Amino acid sequence: MEQMRIGIVGLGLIGGSMAKAVKAKTKHTVIGYEIDCEVLHRAQEEGAIDYEGNDDLLQTLDLLLVALYPGQTVEFIRTKADWIRPGCMVIDLCGVKGYICGALGPFCAQRGIAFIGGHPMAGREFSGYDAAQAGLFQGASMLLVPTEAGSARQAEAFKPFFRSLGFEKVVVTTAENHDRMIAFTSQLAHVVSNAYVKSPEAEKHDGYSAGSYKDLTRVARLNDGMWSELFLCNREALLDELNGIIGHLEEYRDALEKGDRDGLQRLLKAGSDRKKRIDRDGE
Amino acid sequence: MEQMRIGIVGLGLIGGSMAKAVKAKTKHTVIGYEIDCEVLHRAQEEGAIDYEGNDDLLQTLDLLLVALYPGQTVEFIRTKADWIRPGCMVIDLCGVKGYICGALGPFCAQRGIAFIGGHPMAGREFSGYDAAQAGLFQGASMLLVPTEAGSARQAEAFKPFFRSLGFEKVVVTTAENHDRMIAFTSQLAHVVSNAYVKSPEAEKHDGYSAGSYKDLTRVARLNDGMWSELFLCNREALLDELNGIIGHLEEYRDALEKGDRDGLQRLLKAGSDRKKRIDRDGE
Repeated sequence: MEQMRIGIVGLGLIGGSMAKAVKAKTKHTVIGYEIDCEVLHRAQEEGAIDYEGNDDLLQTLDLLLVALYPGQTVEFIRTKADWIRPGCMVIDLCGVKGYICGALGPFCAQRGIAFIGGHPMAGREFSGYDAAQAGLFQGASMLLVPTEAGSARQAEAFKPFFRSLGFEKVVVTTAENHDRMIAFTSQLAHVVSNAYVKSPEAEKHDGYSAGSYKDLTRVARLNDGMWSELFLCNREALLDELNGIIGHLEEYRDALEKGDRDGLQRLLKAGSDRKKRIDRDGE
Repeated sequence: MEQMRIGIVGLGLIGGSMAKAVKAKTKHTVIGYEIDCEVLHRAQEEGAIDYEGNDDLLQTLDLLLVALYPGQTVEFIRTKADWIRPGCMVIDLCGVKGYICGALGPFCAQRGIAFIGGHPMAGREFSGYDAAQAGLFQGASMLLVPTEAGSARQAEAFKPFFRSLGFEKVVVTTAENHDRMIAFTSQLAHVVSNAYVKSPEAEKHDGYSAGSYKDLTRVARLNDGMWSELFLCNREALLDELNGIIGHLEEYRDALEKGDRDGLQRLLKAGSDRKKRIDRDGE
């Protein structure tokens, strides 16, 4: 892929890591957009971006990556539509795709802007530019969602770019499938982990914790503003997952309450067998 | 601590790892007891034990570690009581302590056998001798529970021994406190993880998983026979934890269902703040 001029909007954990990865691993030029001037200056000093962005520079880009919250993402692209040049590909980096692609696909198609939804499946328990790392995407999956304004073929064409940043898999899928899968693999994990630490025992666990506790609670620490917006943008799918796990947990609870060892063992075996099957098939 | 003759009963994941750790890291002699003759021979060939045990050798031990399921543990010590010499310390390695110490404390006190409850807080998603590792306990906590037949001072005296196997913390506590904490840090984690993979999406997650999914589902794969017995031995405490997390998950579910972003964000912030506070205080 030839050298591109890449705009990155929002230099938080994801946008900042994108900027650092592009500069560390490729020869592309990065133009950064960030409302926190202190962060913007620091990103330039550290070489995470080449230039601080403005509306005029928007017209010079080959690729525009938007790493804002869902509502801000839609607002930014709608507001800046006049400055985005026809040859530029716009890809957002939000954790939900139905809401984003529904709001921006038809809009961008009408305005002649190329737009594809994107979701880098990587994160940390910390947020903001200071937590950003060039290696954040190493081995991760990048999900791409074609829209009315950007075809599957155009999405495929960006695979080498994302691989060059460290992504191992670049998967092209639909917004609906993305949102259903992400409700399970990521959103539910954050809710369950966040709920887990609310036990009265949580504050006294020191010395009593094994790997299982550490694993279950790692993502309990999260950006509550961002995640509550993401959850509401994917309400139906996440509700299905939450109702599902609550129903399953009630089965173990009922078997335990009745002292039904066979029933409890059957429930555990079903989960364990399923996990073995999944691990054999996937990853 | 001078050289001891240590009997280890049950050469599965925990007993096998104890045997390997003792032989790899100390100069003590290990006598192994295991009903699977093939495993017993292999353990001797590999140097994980010095001798295959029998009733007569039971009378020569300084320390007897029993790494069986709860019911088997109680049965083994009751059955072999006549062969255990008065100077030998018996420590079981089960994951529950109220049931074990209640069944064996008074019995051992009456029979003049020294007995302390024990729980090495370490494990793997695999079970049996082949999964056993000399390094399994590196950095882990060892929990010790004094009984009518073994004082806190006697428990303290074994701290150096367990540290020599790699344990970082050796905590002396009560059976009640142990069981309440373990219901939260370990048993609940296994139930939640086991329930997590039962989502219809679980079998299709390949390419959509990030670290959060991997963490939440690691311990879904478990020994269903052992864990169903452990859960029932700790029924009340685990029921409290299960009802607790189900209640918390219902709060997020209800906020999401109502589209109550402020409420959802408050719930997430409470969990996230709690996790930050715990991490600052503990570990």
